[in-house]
Amino acid sequence: MKRSVLKFGGSSVADFSKIKNIAQYLKERVEADEQLVVVVSAMGKTTDQLLASVNELTSKPNDKDLAMLLTTGEQQTISFLSLALNDLNVNAKPLTGYQAGIETIGKHLKSKISSIKTDLLEQLFKEQNILIVAGFQGFNKAGELTTLGRGGSDTTAVAIASALDCPCEIYTDVTGVFSTDPRVYPEAKRWDTISFEEMMEMSALGAGVLETRSVELANNHNIPIYLGKTLSNEKGTWIVPYDQMLERKAVTGVALDKEMAHVTITYPNESQSFLHDLFIKLEEAEINIDMISQIQNQDGLQLSFTFKESEERELNELFDSLKSDYDRLYVKIETTYCKVSVIGAGMRDMTGIASKIFKTLIESDIPFYQVTTSEISVSYVVDGENGEKATRILCQTFDL
Amino acid sequence: MKRSVLKFGGSSVADFSKIKNIAQYLKERVEADEQLVVVVSAMGKTTDQLLASVNELTSKPNDKDLAMLLTTGEQQTISFLSLALNDLNVNAKPLTGYQAGIETIGKHLKSKISSIKTDLLEQLFKEQNILIVAGFQGFNKAGELTTLGRGGSDTTAVAIASALDCPCEIYTDVTGVFSTDPRVYPEAKRWDTISFEEMMEMSALGAGVLETRSVELANNHNIPIYLGKTLSNEKGTWIVPYDQMLERKAVTGVALDKEMAHVTITYPNESQSFLHDLFIKLEEAEINIDMISQIQNQDGLQLSFTFKESEERELNELFDSLKSDYDRLYVKIETTYCKVSVIGAGMRDMTGIASKIFKTLIESDIPFYQVTTSEISVSYVVDGENGEKATRILCQTFDL
Repeated sequence: MKRSVLKFGGSSVADFSKIKNIAQYLKERVEADEQLVVVVSAMGKTTDQLLASVNELTSKPNDKDLAMLLTTGEQQTISFLSLALNDLNVNAKPLTGYQAGIETIGKHLKSKISSIKTDLLEQLFKEQNILIVAGFQGFNKAGELTTLGRGGSDTTAVAIASALDCPCEIYTDVTGVFSTDPRVYPEAKRWDTISFEEMMEMSALGAGVLETRSVELANNHNIPIYLGKTLSNEKGTWIVPYDQMLERKAVTGVALDKEMAHVTITYPNESQSFLHDLFIKLEEAEINIDMISQIQNQDGLQLSFTFKESEERELNELFDSLKSDYDRLYVKIETTYCKVSVIGAGMRDMTGIASKIFKTLIESDIPFYQVTTSEISVSYVVDGENGEKATRILCQTFDL
Repeated sequence: MKRSVLKFGGSSVADFSKIKNIAQYLKERVEADEQLVVVVSAMGKTTDQLLASVNELTSKPNDKDLAMLLTTGEQQTISFLSLALNDLNVNAKPLTGYQAGIETIGKHLKSKISSIKTDLLEQLFKEQNILIVAGFQGFNKAGELTTLGRGGSDTTAVAIASALDCPCEIYTDVTGVFSTDPRVYPEAKRWDTISFEEMMEMSALGAGVLETRSVELANNHNIPIYLGKTLSNEKGTWIVPYDQMLERKAVTGVALDKEMAHVTITYPNESQSFLHDLFIKLEEAEINIDMISQIQNQDGLQLSFTFKESEERELNELFDSLKSDYDRLYVKIETTYCKVSVIGAGMRDMTGIASKIFKTLIESDIPFYQVTTSEISVSYVVDGENGEKATRILCQTFDL
């Protein structure tokens, strides 16, 4: 019997008529002799509303209680979807993260899945063909409820697909993977297939379709992911190993990561213990940094990196606590930058891509402040106001 | 260290300002060196709203999915209360019914608590002084989420108090136990103490302050229950063993049970298998019946009993299914009756109470259709329109 994991995001289950339509679609799939795990998010803006309501109650909410609260959102969706299926005489089993055996590690609100009780799911499949699992949630070793980080429901779906070794279909309100954000460049092309590596770069560099961790997980377990529009006949994109790709191009996408900030740190003393403390604290605070440059000269240590503007408050707190130990530390934070990245798995086989990008940006009068490269991507930090312009020009240059 | 279980009902936690006030009160209690288990219901009308929303989704909701949905209500309350306590720098542990180890048996929406993992609670008390437990919910042997029947959060509180062998305080919007419903008879007296037996009769006969099962459980484990108004300085009522009562009267209360219905069944044949099937089906459907009278004469079996008007649909379905096996069955259901009960643990020591009631009803022109007695109560079925009148006259007669 064919088996798949399907994931429907918050906007796909935003109201009862959408939930009913999904139930009807799932009914057709199981009648075609499939077994399905269906992962759902909280309905529409439920999570945001719960968080907003908490602000009326306390100005310093703690993570453990917030996680307990937020998990009710997905629990309601799995109940509603199961009720809708039952209305169509389809028997389904709704499961909270706890019930599905999704064990996590890490902070309560930014947990990572550490294991899934596959034998439990296998056992349940003996009794019914649809298991509905609450996305974005799990439980830790202490038996406390936890939520996963950003894009958590995608991770739930891919992790279950990896555990069950079956394909994963992720449905959102986007038709698939495009060469760049169609809101920035309306002529952007949708790909039928894209490789795991390219998708990982796209996600990591800000394309925002799917969290990097989900793609990484699928890549590690060789689980194909389909990205498509919910209940649409429009074709979506399959994310597959590079050697299974039907179309190959040198450059497949331009990713634009807005709301970036840039920090420059100067510390005049011997730097080993300082660097050690800094990176330990960054890890503890789970702040993602990128584009790290470091210079050691007669003035001491010079370090710069980029980070998400949204994490500015946490980063400032981190530096405040560091300054108590390192009083001669000098920190300069600048905001409203963008990162524009050009991605392509074919890039390693080709030459001239980087120089073509340099030439394009210079000819278009777009200054860039930092450049980093990976095996299949080149990233540029540009002024916030130049981000969309650079994206469009690079898409035209590479015929995307 | 003194230990207590406190329960706050839905109207007591209906909004954030109420939840904050309760948090402040709990803080004072733990600062006075107490350990508390706090059982809470869903906020205000949350459960009703969830049930109403389900009607938009399906006309035939199934119990398993409904239970899964409804448990989110209390889970949100425990999260909010824990957040409010955290805001006051009080560390608390919110626990779902599952996490508190509240195992249940029976139907998903009318489950009964079968066991509580006391050692788990004892373990948690080593780390913190407030455990917040979601009322009204648990899980069954299959690991599915369940809800308890009516008054379920009271049962959760009393069951935990019984398991931990400590007193239980139940807070609602009523000041305590009155001789009768003050809405019917404003001069009704509030008791400082009442015995378990009287309270059980009061509850069973419709006083509605506390479900019978909760009182029964407390009685079995000899757990004193306090019934009081949430965050009020007004004195409430302690429910205690009869021999610990401070004040003793022959008659302590008049309970009015509205919306009763009456069924008369005639079945002309030999009746053993019919009665067996009837009572098995009543038990399966979990329909509570009362005031059973049975006569066997030359016309066959005549049986009558009372039941809650709200269960008329289920009872009709039950008789429809019985008629397929017993085609000569004749059933007559009459609605809009009331049951008026006079209760007093002192009744068994005294004589003349029953005759005094008879005399009072006859003199007041209140016809009654059926009478049943227990050791400490006498109940009368009267017309719906006479229920409140009979209650007031009986309260005056017995100076309640």
